[in-house]
Amino acid sequence: MRVEIWSDIACPWCYVGKARFEKALAAFPHRDQVEVVHRSFELDPGRAKGDIQPVITMLTRKYGMSAAQAEAGEDNLGRLAAAEGLDYRTRGRDHGSTFDMHRLLHLAKDKGRQDELLQTLYRANFAEERSVFAEGDERLVELAVAAGLDADDARKVLADPDAYADDVRADEREAARLGATGVPFFVLDRKFGVSGAQPAEVFEQALTQAWGERSPLRLVDRGDAEACGPDGCAVPQR
Amino acid sequence: MRVEIWSDIACPWCYVGKARFEKALAAFPHRDQVEVVHRSFELDPGRAKGDIQPVITMLTRKYGMSAAQAEAGEDNLGRLAAAEGLDYRTRGRDHGSTFDMHRLLHLAKDKGRQDELLQTLYRANFAEERSVFAEGDERLVELAVAAGLDADDARKVLADPDAYADDVRADEREAARLGATGVPFFVLDRKFGVSGAQPAEVFEQALTQAWGERSPLRLVDRGDAEACGPDGCAVPQR
Repeated sequence: MRVEIWSDIACPWCYVGKARFEKALAAFPHRDQVEVVHRSFELDPGRAKGDIQPVITMLTRKYGMSAAQAEAGEDNLGRLAAAEGLDYRTRGRDHGSTFDMHRLLHLAKDKGRQDELLQTLYRANFAEERSVFAEGDERLVELAVAAGLDADDARKVLADPDAYADDVRADEREAARLGATGVPFFVLDRKFGVSGAQPAEVFEQALTQAWGERSPLRLVDRGDAEACGPDGCAVPQR
Repeated sequence: MRVEIWSDIACPWCYVGKARFEKALAAFPHRDQVEVVHRSFELDPGRAKGDIQPVITMLTRKYGMSAAQAEAGEDNLGRLAAAEGLDYRTRGRDHGSTFDMHRLLHLAKDKGRQDELLQTLYRANFAEERSVFAEGDERLVELAVAAGLDADDARKVLADPDAYADDVRADEREAARLGATGVPFFVLDRKFGVSGAQPAEVFEQALTQAWGERSPLRLVDRGDAEACGPDGCAVPQR
C-alpha cells in the first residue's frame, strides 16, 4: 500500500499532521507494507525567493488579524505541536518561498533520503532559531547534509533553478487534479483521501479501510504470457 | 500513476519485457507522471547460494528437453532480445540463486538507484561473459558500484544475510496476493495487471486504460480540516 503526502515546509499543520499520521502508522499492523512518499505543495507558489517576512507580520497582513490574535494562534499551534512531541517556536519565526526546499526534496527522493530531509526542514523551520529562508543557499546545503545528502549534489540543484522544478510543479498539478485545495493532504493507494492534520484515529481508520479494500487486479491481457514461473520459462516458438 | 514490475534477474522474459515496457512508456504522453518501481520475485527461492549450473543443463533437467532443444530455445530468445536492441549470450551462461541480487536491489531502491542496478544486473547476466553467480560477492559489489552505489554499502548488505531479506520476501508475498504466478508481472496503480513480456502495444493499451480510469478519491473524513491553503492556515481554536 502506498500513502502519498502533499505538504509544504511552511505549513504548521503539515508538521503536526505528519506526526499524527506517523503515530497511526506505527500502530498499523501492516506498516511494513506501507510505503510513504512525500509530494510538493507550495502554499505561496508565486513568492519571490528574497521575499521574507516575520510569521506574525504575514499572519496579520493575510488575515487582517491583530498581532495579539496572530500570537495567540501561534501559541495554540505550539501547544498542539507539543502534544505530538514536537518543538515549536511560537515567536521569531519567518516566512518565505519554499520552492528551493521542494526542489531539494526531489533530489532527496532520488537519493532515498526524502523523509529525512523533510523532517530536517520542518524541524529547522519550526523549532530552530536560525532561519531557513534568510541565510541563503548554504543554510539549505547544511540541512541537506544533515539529512544525509551530498553537499555538492545539493549545491548543484540550488545553483540551477530548473533542477527538479518540473517535479515540484508536477506534484502540484497532481494535487489539484486529486482535489486537494490545502495541505497536508494524504492519499492512500490513489483511492482514499484524508485532508488536514486529522487526529491519529482518523489516519488509523483510513489505513484500515484502504488496506481492506485493496482491489483485485484487472488483467489487461490474458493471452499466452511470455513469462517465467517456478516451473520454468515459456519456450519461444520462433 | 505508478507501475510496479515484479521480475527476477534470471528471467529472460523479464529482461525482454522490461525493454518492451520501456518502449511503450517512452511513447506514452503522460510518461513524466509515471513512476516505475521494481519488485522482487525469485523463480527459484529455495536455491542455495553455491548451487550454480549451466543454463542449458538447467533447462534440460527442468523440462526434460534435449540439449539441442534447449539451445534452440536460447537462440530464439537471443533473436527476440536483439529485436529489442538487447545483447543476449545464447551459450555459456549459468544459473544460480538471485536472492543476494534482490537484496541489493532493495538497497539500491533506498538510494534511488534501483533501475540502474536492475539494468546492470540484467546486462551482466544475459550479455556479459563473466558470471554473476560464480565469482562471489565482490562481483556483485562491482556491479553495484557500476550502478552508482557505494561499495561499502553493498558489502555490508552482502555480509549480513538478513539485510533486506524481509523486503525481498514481502515483495514475493505481495506478488502472490496479487495473483502473479510468473514474471515479469506489471501492476498499474494496483488496479490493472499485465502478465508476461507482452508486445509494447499491450503495455501502451494498459498505460492508456489505467490513466483514463484513475479514480476520484474517497475522502475518509470530510470534517473541518486543520490545514493550510493558498489563503492561509486554519487557526487553532484551543
